Amino acid sequence: MEKGDTRFPDRVRDLIEASELSALDRLLAAMPPQEIEEVLENLDNDQRKLILDRLEPELAAEVFGGLDEDIQEEMAELLSDRELADLVEDMDSDEAADTVRLLEPEEQGRVLDLLQDDTEEGLRELLQHEEDTAGDLMMAELAAIHENALVAEAIEYLREHQDEIRELYTVYLVDSRRRLVGSLSLRDMVLARPGMPIKTFMDPVTVSATPAMDQEEVAQLFKKYDLVSLPVVDEEGILVGRITVDDVMDVMEEEADEDLSRFAGLGDLSVRPGRLFRVSRARLPWLVLGLLGGLLSARLLKGYEGVLGQVLELAFFVPVITALGGNIGIQSSTIIVRNLAEGDVRLKEALRLVLREAWVSLINGLIIGAIVFLLVWLWLDRMPLGLVVALSMLSVVLWATLTGTVVPLVLKRLGQDPAYATGPFVTTTNDIVDLAIYMFIALHLLPIL
Amino acid sequence: MEKGDTRFPDRVRDLIEASELSALDRLLAAMPPQEIEEVLENLDNDQRKLILDRLEPELAAEVFGGLDEDIQEEMAELLSDRELADLVEDMDSDEAADTVRLLEPEEQGRVLDLLQDDTEEGLRELLQHEEDTAGDLMMAELAAIHENALVAEAIEYLREHQDEIRELYTVYLVDSRRRLVGSLSLRDMVLARPGMPIKTFMDPVTVSATPAMDQEEVAQLFKKYDLVSLPVVDEEGILVGRITVDDVMDVMEEEADEDLSRFAGLGDLSVRPGRLFRVSRARLPWLVLGLLGGLLSARLLKGYEGVLGQVLELAFFVPVITALGGNIGIQSSTIIVRNLAEGDVRLKEALRLVLREAWVSLINGLIIGAIVFLLVWLWLDRMPLGLVVALSMLSVVLWATLTGTVVPLVLKRLGQDPAYATGPFVTTTNDIVDLAIYMFIALHLLPIL
Repeated sequence: MEKGDTRFPDRVRDLIEASELSALDRLLAAMPPQEIEEVLENLDNDQRKLILDRLEPELAAEVFGGLDEDIQEEMAELLSDRELADLVEDMDSDEAADTVRLLEPEEQGRVLDLLQDDTEEGLRELLQHEEDTAGDLMMAELAAIHENALVAEAIEYLREHQDEIRELYTVYLVDSRRRLVGSLSLRDMVLARPGMPIKTFMDPVTVSATPAMDQEEVAQLFKKYDLVSLPVVDEEGILVGRITVDDVMDVMEEEADEDLSRFAGLGDLSVRPGRLFRVSRARLPWLVLGLLGGLLSARLLKGYEGVLGQVLELAFFVPVITALGGNIGIQSSTIIVRNLAEGDVRLKEALRLVLREAWVSLINGLIIGAIVFLLVWLWLDRMPLGLVVALSMLSVVLWATLTGTVVPLVLKRLGQDPAYATGPFVTTTNDIVDLAIYMFIALHLLPIL
Repeated sequence: MEKGDTRFPDRVRDLIEASELSALDRLLAAMPPQEIEEVLENLDNDQRKLILDRLEPELAAEVFGGLDEDIQEEMAELLSDRELADLVEDMDSDEAADTVRLLEPEEQGRVLDLLQDDTEEGLRELLQHEEDTAGDLMMAELAAIHENALVAEAIEYLREHQDEIRELYTVYLVDSRRRLVGSLSLRDMVLARPGMPIKTFMDPVTVSATPAMDQEEVAQLFKKYDLVSLPVVDEEGILVGRITVDDVMDVMEEEADEDLSRFAGLGDLSVRPGRLFRVSRARLPWLVLGLLGGLLSARLLKGYEGVLGQVLELAFFVPVITALGGNIGIQSSTIIVRNLAEGDVRLKEALRLVLREAWVSLINGLIIGAIVFLLVWLWLDRMPLGLVVALSMLSVVLWATLTGTVVPLVLKRLGQDPAYATGPFVTTTNDIVDLAIYMFIALHLLPIL
């Protein structure tokens, strides 16, 4: 069946263009919602609207909620407030909140007013949480059962609420004030004898999130404790929502994309094709920054016009020096950024990492310096130049390691994303310092040798 | 409770050093297994062994199986075959297979022979699968129930097997030949009336993996269909195992690390501190490669000694040109690599991406070229030089975009990881081409202007 997937978009497009609507309905009925989402992402907005209109309301809501945010945003412009409200009404609360967030403030109000009162109230509460927090990820639909219930009563509760609670892996036990007291996996629930008090089978809850917790921290809890769902409680311990693992996988992918995006100096990776100037504008700032850095390097070299004019061969090694500094800097900072991403690194651990990087780079710097010294000597028959280049390389390796290691740690301490340390700003700054080191050594060492 | 975590390792270490073993036991009893794992990762091997010996066998197995692979490898050297076999016997089969894989071939045989016959047989089967495939990720413990059973019979089956099947979210229905015919979420199982045939509540299975499927493809299935577990079937459709979402989160992290590692030209990110020469050796190849590329650039510049000697200012802009080419190349290739990582890009889609990149880079190249032209003209009062630098930049931008876009697509087509396209090899090659373009334009344009 995976093989068949790739043909769905073409078949759907063909049927739309041939206006064979009953064949289209049959095809859509045979596709799981995720396939329909994928097809929609490959169609234009009018075709998307046509398909959405032909789906059952519940399915339409599920499909719409699963679309990429920028496609939802585009489509929202084609839909009336009433149509949007109908879609939102049928979504799980976490996806409903995400969709409403995409609308303009005024439209948000109009759509919320069209919802049923309890849906509206629940959504307004979810919308108060900051983006990229546990409160933003969580959904309100969950199974909260009084701790004194019997297993059979809990099953009856689930049966009554089965339409609302779609993905369910864990049942939460609460006291009379709805404070979380423990949990029960569905596995244990299936195995429990119906006549027994449910508390007999309870795990006291050890892990929970608060609504303000950062989504990266939430993802770390899921990874560490191998969770499939995580309860969210407020300051008083009252159960307000739960986060499911599918949302955490999205967070992990988002964070990995963000890392790479900062790495590469890309503004916003998620900008869609067709918006050329937006893409261009997102990337340009980093390019201009790199350019200004380059011009500063040029200015620096101009300052050493004298020595460069006398020993032109010095200029040949400019790209060698900057490339080495760039590679080493990226290597060390990537190591540190990854270590930081896997959890908080404490100061002691951080110092050990810095020290290790220093040793590794000293070893590699000596090896590379020796190779270069020999090559330059043999190639150009200029022993002094070889020494200058080799010494500069060793210094550049040490400097690049130092900044590549320390900058992400400092950024982390300042509450910034350490991944910026691998980005163009640091690389560019390093280029300039590398050249300054090279020219400084050349200016002072060449006359002596 | 999250706050408390960070002090566990220190407290454990203090208790070991003070030989307060009964206090240590009390502390360990209060810690969830994942906390014990984290503590062990921060201790030395003798301390790790001491703690492992004090845990109940089942807990020891769970903790050991959860440790990083390189720590398991180190500890395995301290453990006897019998001790290893006892640990492996109590693990879930996927973790047991991972642990046995870490041993030397001879030790593998000895440990396997010490296991109970059925454990040994199951493990030998799992060990046949290639690493990083669905067969490597899957565990054999699962709930397979005959399609004609009643709900009550299924629950009885789960009750009998509850010790072996620990994480359970989905029950699989099979025919008399154990071929997978459908599945049932535990949620539906809880809601089902015990006297009904289980088939009434069955979802016909739409998604499954084969043992040879690559782990990245498995992760994509989990993300696309929001799965918590995925059945694995052989060529005849016979159910052979299941993969759970916690393993998929590990895969996602591993793949993100791998991307970054290729990006940065790091050999193996997972090498532990303390193994300086191994770390150094892992990174050195890329550095030497970069160095050789740099020396080639130097050779190239030496070939243009004539024009450089006449117009020394040309040398100043060497770092500007290479930095810009590097940034642009990384930007485009990162975009393509990310798009490829999110699923197969078909040829048509790929062409659209290349075209978009070309347009964006033309826009940005023109803007950057214009800025540079004006700056150089104003700064050095040399209009011809400004024109040479600006034209070279535009060419470099277009060239870097072209290779940054096409190389990952070609690598993908050849079955290689496209992330290599963002690595040092391509960056270095681009540096050389960038300089060649610059010098070529200077040599031919300067005499005319």
